[in-house]
Amino acid sequence: MAAQKSVQPAPDSTRRSEKSRRAIYDAALALVVEVGYPKTTIEGIAARAGVGKQTIYRWWSSKADVLMEAFLDLAEQASREGGHEPYAFPDTGDLAADLKVVLRATVDELKDPRFEVPSRALAAQGVVDEQFGRQLVAKLLQPSLDLYMERLRAAQDAGQVRPGIDPRIALELFVSPLAQRWLQHTGPISYEYTDTLVDYALHGLAPR
Amino acid sequence: MAAQKSVQPAPDSTRRSEKSRRAIYDAALALVVEVGYPKTTIEGIAARAGVGKQTIYRWWSSKADVLMEAFLDLAEQASREGGHEPYAFPDTGDLAADLKVVLRATVDELKDPRFEVPSRALAAQGVVDEQFGRQLVAKLLQPSLDLYMERLRAAQDAGQVRPGIDPRIALELFVSPLAQRWLQHTGPISYEYTDTLVDYALHGLAPR
Repeated sequence: MAAQKSVQPAPDSTRRSEKSRRAIYDAALALVVEVGYPKTTIEGIAARAGVGKQTIYRWWSSKADVLMEAFLDLAEQASREGGHEPYAFPDTGDLAADLKVVLRATVDELKDPRFEVPSRALAAQGVVDEQFGRQLVAKLLQPSLDLYMERLRAAQDAGQVRPGIDPRIALELFVSPLAQRWLQHTGPISYEYTDTLVDYALHGLAPR
Repeated sequence: MAAQKSVQPAPDSTRRSEKSRRAIYDAALALVVEVGYPKTTIEGIAARAGVGKQTIYRWWSSKADVLMEAFLDLAEQASREGGHEPYAFPDTGDLAADLKVVLRATVDELKDPRFEVPSRALAAQGVVDEQFGRQLVAKLLQPSLDLYMERLRAAQDAGQVRPGIDPRIALELFVSPLAQRWLQHTGPISYEYTDTLVDYALHGLAPR
């Protein structure tokens, strides 16, 4: 049944829905870029997407929801174009190498001009609006952080990370510096930089 | 001459200037809290402070300048109240202990309700406006980062930090995680947390 369904063309209503969904995502991202998050409204998104307000409310409960899913969709598309699955993390057995690969991919994403403006608009809103910020993290950031934690736990099992280390805090030693440089323009972002973060975090600043 | 000057009461014009400066700082911080950075104007600040626009333009070239100096002044006041000089960094010879003291003081500042709203308003603007963000970092963050670098260099000279380490990147291993948790609401902030960051950064995640 499922297999047959997947080879059949989608029924007209599904195709229409998919077209509307995409128009709504595009409108939401375009508006947040043009007028900023506070002035983006469900009405504005509906008008620009050429759909009724009710179509949006049928699928999403707020503009925050629409925008975050629109952005998530954009990020997933970009991940696939970059040739990697959005929520997969390499485990070659070499922790440093795996972390460097993932952080280099993040550098590429942060430098992708399609992301730059919408992701900054959403992040800025998250700074001043805690509830929105927490939703943003839960939807956009936490799934990636979970994968780092899983990879660090596997490294702990393999004896490559000290047993007492809390993986949730450990991952911040390389994830947060990159995030702060991007958020606050505190320094340039490059592969060399993220590679260095991984080396410093794994081996420590103090002599061994 | 200088000593005599400091015990004399300030001349009237100096006192008036000081009173105006303070009124302008208070007005600027209050406005950015109430209406946000984009809607805060020099006109609005002048009206609220009860001074002419020209008084503001005599001392500052833009609203960004006024706001950053108002915030810097607030931060310096709070530092002094907290019993520590704003731009001093302990060097007891114990790097871990010194870093923990400074980061604990930063935790206190980040949790100070007087800072919370204005510093978030400024930081959010910095996320979407690179030029503003760079000014903010240069005025508010860089002086502290310079002190971390100095302390790390002293630790390098004392053989407590490996010679090849770049202090500018090294400091991010404990400064950036705290910054990201605060900016993005990615986790709670506590003394225990910043102490842990220092231990992980100095000793590394990998077994020794």
